[in-house]
Amino acid sequence: MNIDLLIEIMNLIGDVAFAVSGAMTAIEKRMDIFGVCVLSIVTTVGGGMTRDVLLGILPPIALQDPLDIGVATVVACIVFIWAARKKHLDQSQSPITANMLNISDAIGLGIFTVIGINVAQSHLEDAHAFILIVVGVITGVGGGALRDVLSGSIPYIFKKHVYAMASAVGAIAYVVMDDLVGVAWATILCAILVIAIRLLAAYYRWNLPRIHEIEEEIGSNTEP
Amino acid sequence: MNIDLLIEIMNLIGDVAFAVSGAMTAIEKRMDIFGVCVLSIVTTVGGGMTRDVLLGILPPIALQDPLDIGVATVVACIVFIWAARKKHLDQSQSPITANMLNISDAIGLGIFTVIGINVAQSHLEDAHAFILIVVGVITGVGGGALRDVLSGSIPYIFKKHVYAMASAVGAIAYVVMDDLVGVAWATILCAILVIAIRLLAAYYRWNLPRIHEIEEEIGSNTEP
Amino acid sequence: MNIDLLIEIMNLIGDVAFAVSGAMTAIEKRMDIFGVCVLSIVTTVGGGMTRDVLLGILPPIALQDPLDIGVATVVACIVFIWAARKKHLDQSQSPITANMLNISDAIGLGIFTVIGINVAQSHLEDAHAFILIVVGVITGVGGGALRDVLSGSIPYIFKKHVYAMASAVGAIAYVVMDDLVGVAWATILCAILVIAIRLLAAYYRWNLPRIHEIEEEIGSNTEP
Repeated sequence: MNIDLLIEIMNLIGDVAFAVSGAMTAIEKRMDIFGVCVLSIVTTVGGGMTRDVLLGILPPIALQDPLDIGVATVVACIVFIWAARKKHLDQSQSPITANMLNISDAIGLGIFTVIGINVAQSHLEDAHAFILIVVGVITGVGGGALRDVLSGSIPYIFKKHVYAMASAVGAIAYVVMDDLVGVAWATILCAILVIAIRLLAAYYRWNLPRIHEIEEEIGSNTEP
Repeated sequence: MNIDLLIEIMNLIGDVAFAVSGAMTAIEKRMDIFGVCVLSIVTTVGGGMTRDVLLGILPPIALQDPLDIGVATVVACIVFIWAARKKHLDQSQSPITANMLNISDAIGLGIFTVIGINVAQSHLEDAHAFILIVVGVITGVGGGALRDVLSGSIPYIFKKHVYAMASAVGAIAYVVMDDLVGVAWATILCAILVIAIRLLAAYYRWNLPRIHEIEEEIGSNTEP
Repeated sequence: MNIDLLIEIMNLIGDVAFAVSGAMTAIEKRMDIFGVCVLSIVTTVGGGMTRDVLLGILPPIALQDPLDIGVATVVACIVFIWAARKKHLDQSQSPITANMLNISDAIGLGIFTVIGINVAQSHLEDAHAFILIVVGVITGVGGGALRDVLSGSIPYIFKKHVYAMASAVGAIAYVVMDDLVGVAWATILCAILVIAIRLLAAYYRWNLPRIHEIEEEIGSNTEP
């Protein structure tokens, strides 16, 4: 399999996914069409640009090649028109909108985590596993975090079930599988792994421990 | 016309304008004198430092030369003293304050958009129009966006009438006019263009389409 | 005294301090264990990574060497377990928690301010005092500012008594003392100076002038 072509296709899918999530967030926040485009662009290229700055790829890839920003702009306009036509979209977050936001965000998270590691591998010589995993997670979560901070919310990474963890598990799996099954399969399988973990966690409301809950458990133990 | 001198003078005006907008935002948020200075500095150098990081000009110009940070500090102190003397400044945002904030922000937006393109042109060889425009917009909106995020607000770029769009129109105009009228005139005219679009949009409340309004229009069409 | 060893030890203390402050902030915001780790890591390495990006040390030290992120993760887990065991930690910010947050934040602020200058000195040749001081302050306040923005608060730097000012005073003192007493003593004494100023300011509620208060003073002068 041609690994460059695979990465390009996955990058395109990730762009579309994160652009949708950015556009829908902006529409919910009642931004105008230009604000929708800007938040879409920021979500799409935010993770990759942070990765490129940290790796010293300057100017970042997203500024050298208009593809990512172009895709994000077109997608933002399509989502905007779709939302304008969709009459029964009320001002509160409808279930369909919330699902689309979750799914598109999960797809972007998974794809950009593995692409982040790919870029780090080809840019750094003899990179150890640690930097690959951290750069992968930063690339995966960066765009969504910028989207949330700029639209005035606490990032998903801190409030959603199993979010950064899904990215980290996928990144670790990639580094392990890379030698075993080759880059192409590692790329595809680990992206799917992140998306699957994230969506299952959202659907079944998997929870990681919180102090509040732990207290309740301790409370129920000691106060029978 | 000496282009370097022109850029220096415009940079100074932009510094003062963004420093005023940062200081007034900080005063409204009831920060102390040091917080006022810090927010003033961040607003003034935020866009340019982001530009320099993305272009690989490290350390950024604002750290190499104390001028920008020095100007921002002095302006912040002057605004602070002015606001302290101005007795009838009540705690709510008075119309004069709101106007000054809008105008100073617009001047900074216009000037830093064209300076951003200037710096990108002299730093990158054979840069295509795309990267120039994007770097111009980032330089223009970056300082204000940082100011708003750090002071706990959603950035102007997402909530004000025709904000990022004014910067983008000016950046595109610059790239087009550059060959036709020369750098100096392109610099001056496009900065004025951005400021004019932004202030006219604020004054006449020009609106770009939003889902909420589009829905109403559709509603009024289908429910006569 | 071996200056490299001294810096390493102080770096470790700073890591632990900022990791504690990040973890406690995350717990207060009711994040889960992974969110607590992520906010702890961001607080610990945020200032240093910003410094490295601005100085052009790419990839940043915190990505090249797993130590800082490792320490932050371990500390976050320990704080989490401690908080889970501490039954009487109610949902509102208890005095003990607030004190621990203030103290750990002050220690990180002081240590990372001087380490920031150290790194800038060894990376830049013939750096003038201005860039050293600014880089020191950015390194000191960066991690805490990221912690607060990401957890949805206005940064300490803008709302706490004498915060950025403590860092700036320490940075200036370092640059002055460096030639007089040597790097080692300047490092230790100026870190302690920042911590002392910050904690005394918090304890005695030292205030810098604000418009609100100045108005009251003017008011009391003119309306006897």
